[in-house]
This record gives sequence, C-alpha cells and structure tokens, in this order.
Amino acid sequence: MTETTTQTTGLEAVTAMDEAAVRRNDRAYVFHSWSAQAKIDPLPIASAEGSYFTDYEGRRYLDFSSQLVNVNIGYQHPRLVTAIQEQAARLTTISPAFANDARSEAARMIVEVAPATMDKVFFTNGGADANENAVRMARLHTGRQKVLAAYRSYHGATAGAITLTGDPRRWGSEPAQPGVVHYWGPYLYRSAFHATTQEQECERALQHLRDTLMVEGAHTVAAIILETVVGTNGILVPPDGYLAGVREICDEHGIVMIADEVMSGFGRCGEWFAIDHWGVAPDLISFAKGVNSGYVPIGGVVISGDIAATFDDTSYPGGLTYSGHPLACASAVASMTIFKDEGILENARHLGSVIGPELEALAADHPSVGETRGLGVFWALELVKDRETREPLVPYNAAGAAAGPMNEFAAACKERGLWPFTHFNRTHVVPPCTTTEAEVREGLAVLDEALKVADSYSTGS
Amino acid sequence: MTETTTQTTGLEAVTAMDEAAVRRNDRAYVFHSWSAQAKIDPLPIASAEGSYFTDYEGRRYLDFSSQLVNVNIGYQHPRLVTAIQEQAARLTTISPAFANDARSEAARMIVEVAPATMDKVFFTNGGADANENAVRMARLHTGRQKVLAAYRSYHGATAGAITLTGDPRRWGSEPAQPGVVHYWGPYLYRSAFHATTQEQECERALQHLRDTLMVEGAHTVAAIILETVVGTNGILVPPDGYLAGVREICDEHGIVMIADEVMSGFGRCGEWFAIDHWGVAPDLISFAKGVNSGYVPIGGVVISGDIAATFDDTSYPGGLTYSGHPLACASAVASMTIFKDEGILENARHLGSVIGPELEALAADHPSVGETRGLGVFWALELVKDRETREPLVPYNAAGAAAGPMNEFAAACKERGLWPFTHFNRTHVVPPCTTTEAEVREGLAVLDEALKVADSYSTGS
Repeated sequence: MTETTTQTTGLEAVTAMDEAAVRRNDRAYVFHSWSAQAKIDPLPIASAEGSYFTDYEGRRYLDFSSQLVNVNIGYQHPRLVTAIQEQAARLTTISPAFANDARSEAARMIVEVAPATMDKVFFTNGGADANENAVRMARLHTGRQKVLAAYRSYHGATAGAITLTGDPRRWGSEPAQPGVVHYWGPYLYRSAFHATTQEQECERALQHLRDTLMVEGAHTVAAIILETVVGTNGILVPPDGYLAGVREICDEHGIVMIADEVMSGFGRCGEWFAIDHWGVAPDLISFAKGVNSGYVPIGGVVISGDIAATFDDTSYPGGLTYSGHPLACASAVASMTIFKDEGILENARHLGSVIGPELEALAADHPSVGETRGLGVFWALELVKDRETREPLVPYNAAGAAAGPMNEFAAACKERGLWPFTHFNRTHVVPPCTTTEAEVREGLAVLDEALKVADSYSTGS
Repeated sequence: MTETTTQTTGLEAVTAMDEAAVRRNDRAYVFHSWSAQAKIDPLPIASAEGSYFTDYEGRRYLDFSSQLVNVNIGYQHPRLVTAIQEQAARLTTISPAFANDARSEAARMIVEVAPATMDKVFFTNGGADANENAVRMARLHTGRQKVLAAYRSYHGATAGAITLTGDPRRWGSEPAQPGVVHYWGPYLYRSAFHATTQEQECERALQHLRDTLMVEGAHTVAAIILETVVGTNGILVPPDGYLAGVREICDEHGIVMIADEVMSGFGRCGEWFAIDHWGVAPDLISFAKGVNSGYVPIGGVVISGDIAATFDDTSYPGGLTYSGHPLACASAVASMTIFKDEGILENARHLGSVIGPELEALAADHPSVGETRGLGVFWALELVKDRETREPLVPYNAAGAAAGPMNEFAAACKERGLWPFTHFNRTHVVPPCTTTEAEVREGLAVLDEALKVADSYSTGS
C-alpha cells in the first residue's frame, strides 16, 4: 500500500463547500426521497444547534418539525456529540455475531424502560426494517400470515413496511405483498364510525376491529400493528380504553400486538414509550428516531419474553450487517442517559401542558382551525375550509395548485423564522423535546400570524 | 428542563463494562441475527485495529472475514475516525428534504467513480433497502412488475430483498412477495448447465437466461438483478463475457440491469465497482458495506441518467428518514478520499496477485480443496470430501452435527489467531483491503495448518 504522510481527515472537500457548491452538487448528484427531482430545490443547511437550524444566508429557523420528527434531543447536543466522538475512537463497528459493550448496554437500558413483559431488543438501521422484523417475528411466533394494519398510518418504505402503510405513500409500490388487511382506527374528528364522543369512537373502533377479525378469520391473523399515537397521518391520539381494548382482542385470539413507536417513542409523548401513557404492554415495539435523535442511524424491535422464547431453540431468520452497530448503540446509550440527567421527558410533558391550551387559544381566534389535539410535544392543528362541514383546507393528498393554501401557510411560517411540519391539511407542532417554553411560545406566536393565511381560505373568516 | 452541571458524555456505563458484564447483558437483552438465541454465546470483543480485533482475554485475531465483508478500510482507521469526530461536531443529521454539504459531496464522488452513464445517488441505510429501492425504481421505470434474481444469491432481509435472495435465508420469510423468478447463474465448478469450460458455462448461462425470459415473457420483466461477483454464496466470479451478455439481453428487451455491489464494491474486487473489472455499465448499482466500511450505517443506489430522468417530473415514491445522513455521508467522503490517498484499490489488487497463487499452492497440498477462485481480496476455497465427485465437505445448508467438519476447521483457524469466514462447505479469504502482504501470508499459513482438519474428512487424504 502506498505510504503517505497526509494527515488530513479526508473531509476537506466537504468543509470547503459554499452554498453554491452544496446546491449544485445536490441538484446534479443527489436523488431525493418522495420527490420529482426536477421540481425541487432543497434548501442547503449550514448549521444547527438546539432547537434551531440555519441556512447559508444566515436565516435561522426555529424547528417545529424536529426534521422528520426525530431530533428529540435537539441539534448537536454537546454531550451526545462528545459521546459519538468518544465511541468513534473506541470502536465504530463490529458484526452482530459478536458481543459488544455499547450494544449490551443499549439493549439493557431499552428493556429497562420498556413494559415489564418485554425482554430483548433486536437492533435494525431504522424504523422500516424494525417493522419488517416485527412482522416476521409475529408470523413465525404464531404460524399465521395475515397482518392487520390501520388506514391513515405510515410504517416505512421497504416492501413489507410499505405494504403495512395506510396512506398514499403505498400506492406507488403496489401491487404490494399479500397478507395485509387495512382497518380503520379511532379518529373522532373524522370518525369512520359516525361517533360523536370519544367513548363512542373507542367502542365503535373496537367493534370494527372485532368485526374485521370475524370476517377475516381471527385465527388467520398473526398481528395487529398500529402506531400508538398515529404520527404523520394526523397525531391521532387514541381514546382512553382503545389500546387496552386492542390488547384484549389480541389476547383473546392469540394475535401479536405490535406498537409502532418509531415516531411516538422516546420522549415525543412525554414518556419513554407512548404506550406507557395508557399502561398497556404490547408484544413488540418498533422504535428508531428519538432513541438517539437520528444522530447515527439506528432502529429496533423490543420483544416480549414470550416471543423471544420462540427463537431460543429455533433460529430467527432475519438479520442485517449493522444490527447492534456499536457507534449507533453508544449514541443511544448516551442519549437515554442525557434524557434522564436533564429531565427531558419531564420537559416534554411540561411543554405539552403549555402547547395544549395555547393551541386551543389559537383555535378560538382562527376559524381555519378545526381541531387541535396531541400530547407531549406531539400536536396537530387540523385546518379546514369550514368548521361546520369540516371540509379540509386542501383535499386529501393534495399536490401542486390544490395544495396552494397549505404551501402559502408554510411559506408564511418560514418567512417568520419558523420551520413547520405540514401534511395534507394539517400542521403539526413537533419541536425537539428539549425546546424551552420561551422557544415554544415564540413559535406559537408565528403560527398565530401564519394562520391568518389559512383563515383567508376558510369560510368562517 | 432540569438544569444540570453534569459534564459526562453518558457513555460511562459502557466504558466501565468488563467482559462478564458485556456477556451477561448480551445474553439477557440482545436478540441476535440469524440465530437460535439460547444456542449462541457471542464472543465479546474488546477492541480492534487495522486487520485485527482482540477479545477480553487479550487474544488477537487476524480478520480474514472483514466482519461481514464490510471493514474494507480495516478497523479504526485513524483518519476515518477523525473525520467522523469532525463531522459529528459539525452536523450529525439533517432530513433528506434539505441539501447538505457532506451528502452533496458523497454523491458527487460516487458518481465520479461509477460508470459514465450513471448520474445520481439515492442514499439508504444499508444494502437491503438499497436493493428494495433499486427494484422499485426499475418497476416504475419500465412499468413492469417481474424481477429475475439468481439462485445462490443474497440481497438482504427486508421483505423485498429477501424475496430476491436465492439462498436458504429466504425460506423463513416465505410465502414471499409475488413477482420474483429465480434463475441459475454461472458457476462452472457446480455447473447448472453441465459445462466443462468457462466459455461453455458463459454461453450456456446466457442461453438459460434467454430461455427463462422466453418462457416468462421478456416484456413482463422489469429487472434482472445479480451480484456482480456473488458473495456469501461462494465468490462466484462470472466468466468473461457473462456480464456483457446480460447487458445485451437487458438492452434487447428494455430490462433494467441491477448490479448488487453491496459486498463486491468499493475495493473488495480491487476496483471502485466490481463491474469495472469487465467494463460493463449496469442501470442501477446498489452499494453499502465498503463505501465507508460500515463505520456509520449507510447504503445506496447509483442511478443511470435514463432512470433518474423518469423521476424528474414524476415523484419517486420511496424514502427514509436517514437518507443522505450527514454523518454517514461524511464518513463515505472521507473513506473514498483515504482510498485514493493511500492506494487502497491498488493494494487490494496487489493482494489478489498474492492470494491467488498461494491458494493454488494450498490446493495442491490439501486434498480437501476442490477449487479456489476470486479476485482482489475476495476469494473462496471450496472444500470437498472427494475431488472427483466434488461432494461438498458438508451438505448444502448443513447445521448442527452435519456441519461438524467445517466447525472444526473454523475452530482450528481461531485457535491459531485467524478469524475465518466460513459458509456451507467453503471458507472465504476476505480480509480488509488494507491488509499488508505479510499479514495475508500470516493468515494463509494458518489456513495451511487448519486445512489439515478438512483433509481428514476428505477421501483424498
């Protein structure tokens, strides 16, 4: 091998880039997710810290999106950055066939905060492959094939995960896998069951699930998968009793209950796992994002003792090169430790107690706000043309001109230094869990201004 | 949020662990890939450097496996570690919707070394989701559904990728997706076509592919996917002319040619992409592993200009939170830069010129060696009970007692400080691309000793 005296890191070409170079090479060489490549012009980001990120013009944005609802600990948390640097110097990678200190400790810490019936962790690279493996485990554990998944859900974009998904992101990948049946979950504001109270919505949604199992054959169903609190499809907080009801149905029929907590877990709902809010123990929990705020790609499945035992003597037929990646696991350990040291769950709960009433106040002032809902730092404002008819401000899955009002609303936020998370006719309030109350109030004040744009499309204005 | 004066990184619990703690928590909490959990006892690894890793007893192993054939740059390369530390301090994560310097530069550098017809890079978390997205692109580009994939192949373990896979790892995930048809690739030593020369194997394998397309309907086929050099299933180097022949068949029928270079790319075969060895340009290349040696999880798809253009005005329906992850992309930039600065491709080619003749010499001395084959640092020894009949030393997919002779062989290597890569009846010689010639010769000397164990099960001994 050529000897060299070069002491550079090899990152010089990156650190030397200006905005024009970043944009030029992005447009020339980077193929972007979920996009028509010629129709986008992604904003180059220069830096990020805490609850803010900054572009190359020096415009700073308060982040009400946490990127893709993953930066729960905020940007560039100094202790987490240091932990990654420290682990990089110790050991970046070792295969899943070995034992590793960071992996062992990450698994231990995750099991420690999971429901008591859960015993082990299978690590993946992200949320999609977490759900893929959860379904594989459920099928092999039960010996059944069919999986029930909810409409208005997102579970990832690999072939199995996209098949589970109950939103338009699935359409481009169809025909999809056989064996997945979609059912309707609770969503009182747009009830599939013509309910008028949360109690009724809960009861009818459970009845619908029972009816679906009746006609599908409960004994053919391996798993019911659901987002504990539905994320991108609307921050749909289940009514009290719903998750306990699903648990009961699963128990009755020997069906595995899978809680997808990729978005809702690790502080987003003010708990380690959102399902703790209702005291229900699923059989499998998929996670990613908030576990280490995506500083290093990682995801995984928390596994109940019963399901883990199925694979004690029978080989589990799944795996991946970076399962239990030391650098990723170390960052998860550090992040969870920082969460505890710095009271980040408590902060998320406190922010929830601020955001909830403030959003109600916004709703009172803005006729375009049909409903607000959420918990922790996981909130939605449902924007409507008309509060009576509840007609959405833009149609379901609107694109182009049809999405105009929402695009104008988003632009109004960005002009004022707030980066919103918008989806269909909703804007979500999903800042980092480390955001301060003052920052949250700063962002809500921007929403107050920007909602005037939405109001102008609403008949109530 | 609770104020704290703690200046710890949060990694203290990890760095304080001894071997017993690592093992205890691994056994209690970590669910391992491809394993019966109660039947394994993963070795805790304490550290790794260059071509070696070390356990807690201080036993040092020369790595002839590169973990899962991913540590192409060796362990803990100082410049790559420093680059990761530097980027961690700059920016760990930003969503795929933005432009980012490290992402732009990584994409530019990968396109620069890819065949001239390739224009863009879609980043994923690993090889499985790279193949998932390659197939999705091919289906949408062609408007066809069916995919041809080879037997004796591995493409990953998510639902789409495992369906493509042509080895026993697929069995546990069946019934799998519809629309994948498996064909036989060239493998002269165990020819599916009763060929006796490489020329004949090549010609017959191409004829088989044409015949398969005839009976499947070429116009229904979106893509043919193959590992450029088949990896775990045997280091099957295609005969000269085969890949060009596949390219010609794809062109004739408007079929997308996908080269899976997750294992064979980025130095493993002494080239940036293995397919450069034959001067053939596929339409899509999937990659992972060697691009940054797995120091941070990353993978991706290199996309031809034609296929990228399909998604200029039409949205691409796929994505993932960590696509183009800044920390991962920075590590890819640094790794490629180090490859260039330190002549690592040249070293891999040089090692190939050492390993090839030395394996032939081993074959001459050891009756259990039926064939040796490979290039660069990607070699296999096929172990047999009988050179005449070519009966494998252990049966296909052997487990337990049936795999005894291979397990004994592996144990003999480990006792002598060499960590081998064994699969079925083969041992692969796949050290890091940065291994020195002296280290390779040290490892080959161990193989020479350990092969005596295999010889004892061979009739020729």
